[in-house]
Amino acid sequence: MAPPSTASGYFQESYDLRIAELAEERAQGKTIVGTFCLYVPDEIIFAAGADRIVLCGGRADTIAPAEQMLPRNICPLIKSSFGAILDSRAGGTASCPHVRLVDAVVAEATCDGKKKMYELLPEYVPTYVIDLPQKPGSPEAAAYFLAELRKFGKFMEDLTGNRIRPGDLQREIASANETRKLLHRLFARRKRDPPPIRGSEILRIMQRQFFLSPDRFRTGLRQLCEELDHASTPARTGPRILIAGCPMAAGNTKVADILEQKGAAIVVEESCTGTRAFWDLVDESTDPWTALAERYLRIPCACMTPNDDRIARILDLAKEYTVDGVVYYTLQFCHAYNIERLRVQKALKKEKIPMLAIESDYGDADAEQIGIRIDAFLEMVS
Amino acid sequence: MAPPSTASGYFQESYDLRIAELAEERAQGKTIVGTFCLYVPDEIIFAAGADRIVLCGGRADTIAPAEQMLPRNICPLIKSSFGAILDSRAGGTASCPHVRLVDAVVAEATCDGKKKMYELLPEYVPTYVIDLPQKPGSPEAAAYFLAELRKFGKFMEDLTGNRIRPGDLQREIASANETRKLLHRLFARRKRDPPPIRGSEILRIMQRQFFLSPDRFRTGLRQLCEELDHASTPARTGPRILIAGCPMAAGNTKVADILEQKGAAIVVEESCTGTRAFWDLVDESTDPWTALAERYLRIPCACMTPNDDRIARILDLAKEYTVDGVVYYTLQFCHAYNIERLRVQKALKKEKIPMLAIESDYGDADAEQIGIRIDAFLEMVS
Repeated sequence: MAPPSTASGYFQESYDLRIAELAEERAQGKTIVGTFCLYVPDEIIFAAGADRIVLCGGRADTIAPAEQMLPRNICPLIKSSFGAILDSRAGGTASCPHVRLVDAVVAEATCDGKKKMYELLPEYVPTYVIDLPQKPGSPEAAAYFLAELRKFGKFMEDLTGNRIRPGDLQREIASANETRKLLHRLFARRKRDPPPIRGSEILRIMQRQFFLSPDRFRTGLRQLCEELDHASTPARTGPRILIAGCPMAAGNTKVADILEQKGAAIVVEESCTGTRAFWDLVDESTDPWTALAERYLRIPCACMTPNDDRIARILDLAKEYTVDGVVYYTLQFCHAYNIERLRVQKALKKEKIPMLAIESDYGDADAEQIGIRIDAFLEMVS
Repeated sequence: MAPPSTASGYFQESYDLRIAELAEERAQGKTIVGTFCLYVPDEIIFAAGADRIVLCGGRADTIAPAEQMLPRNICPLIKSSFGAILDSRAGGTASCPHVRLVDAVVAEATCDGKKKMYELLPEYVPTYVIDLPQKPGSPEAAAYFLAELRKFGKFMEDLTGNRIRPGDLQREIASANETRKLLHRLFARRKRDPPPIRGSEILRIMQRQFFLSPDRFRTGLRQLCEELDHASTPARTGPRILIAGCPMAAGNTKVADILEQKGAAIVVEESCTGTRAFWDLVDESTDPWTALAERYLRIPCACMTPNDDRIARILDLAKEYTVDGVVYYTLQFCHAYNIERLRVQKALKKEKIPMLAIESDYGDADAEQIGIRIDAFLEMVS
């Protein structure tokens, strides 16, 4: 397995600098918004002259305060996200440092748990919610989402006092597409056998995609691609694994870590902290608002019905990355990904690709049991 | 507490007749669709010359077959509904007799669990899904839902071979409004102290609302209202309870039964098997499609965000029906109602109305514990 890249030092350093950068921006009057989800277009935020950071949702230590209010039997990401805001607004310091930096949270109507948790936020932080159609295949759904994005643009204009001109949006679309192309370039390197970089390292980088400034993030990606092109091929490798499923937010690397401890080579992640974040580009040749609506509504999240594109993409990735098996990862109590598992499993079975389903929270209680199941799975696919 | 009404005999008889009636209709070429949810307008189905029955979702015995496919940690209503279809299509006889009678299922994108379960249905029965906006307050959301209803109308036209003319729709709207007005008349009787009818009896009637033919259902309602107007006031009563929360589908009367065993007088249900089913009328003075979209989008289900109308309605009902306490009922793992509980609880607390939260499935394992909690609650509110 490959040693950590030196680019990883750059990403770590950038993380520390970023908090100071945002505080400085804010002191100078710049608007900062916090986001939780891929469905909120960065392009609109930047075009309004604001900055953004993704809010924490992967930390285990903010779950206990959240459970004093929220039901226990909802997904850890939602509890962790809410707990981070509760803790921060209560003056807590152990938790997410991002919350204190934002003027507003921009949320989205994706899953039931998040949608309803967002209703509790206005007591702690101004919150705007973008609605999403749930059956994205029709012209009516596209028109509804386009209207929702335009309303969000208006919200950002009111919040910042800046007007979003088509040129601003086009510039930001080009910028975001550049990032997406670099991520494609990085992920393509992982098709090699053995892969030149650990999946857990990629995951930690992807967790920062919506936290770092686009410029700094791209600098790190370029440096990393360069390094990987000149890296000597690592001697040791294991079964090639695709992880498909729920996002692994910053702080949550549990299943990826266990997989690598057990000898797997994670070669690609079909998730919000993987391909879903960057796979499709925004069409730069057409009206920017329409192009954004089209691209973002194409994100194959399990909150959409039916989600056939996701199943097709998993099959494509499994072939492109010549995987030996798929680990289907579900955050505990995430109904959408959990039920969609049935259709994914059926499609993989048809292609004779083995799959292991893991449903887990942020605790350590099930780590050993997961390790045993992964051991057995890797032995089977080796 | 009041003895069962003699109208209840009429409703029971009607149930038995209905299965034969539907089989006969079908034999004569009439289209029958199965529904699961209040968001599917009966008016459109009837206007297309079809008939409809609500499909079973409250039976415990169909959960085990469902759990062989679906995750266990999703709500019992979804598992029961899916299990009923599985069992029926596998030739099972212990389960829902309705499934075998339908040409198609008309479903809706409400909660995550149902939305994703519906994706599995086409393998067993033709399935059509109506999309819903999730943030219903805007003109854009209204327009999107209107478009979805028109598409559903088209689907029904294609399925039946009949055209839906505005006059058909107006006739069915008037019919459905008549039912709604009768239900208002029935529920108003329950404002008396003590109430002249048990809540569990009302629940069993409400569970048949979308199963019986509108004519027969109304005949039963009229008979029942007459009886209640001439009933002698029962001597004994208990604390007046409002049940708010998830639907109690046919077969599931567990919490209502325990409440009455413990001496409560259930006087009103804020649920899909209560006020949500009939409270708002469709405006008969405007374009029927637009009027339907407006009325149906106003249903205050917890899948909507924010759902302030529901909270306001619970407070109104608590006052109108002079309740001593609210039992907040959640089907296990129903994230939307479970999280919305926080806002309901806060609003009730402000009005000094006590609330007891019960989250339960269709099993008996927690019945004794629920009984103990209800005992303590009733003692407190007496």
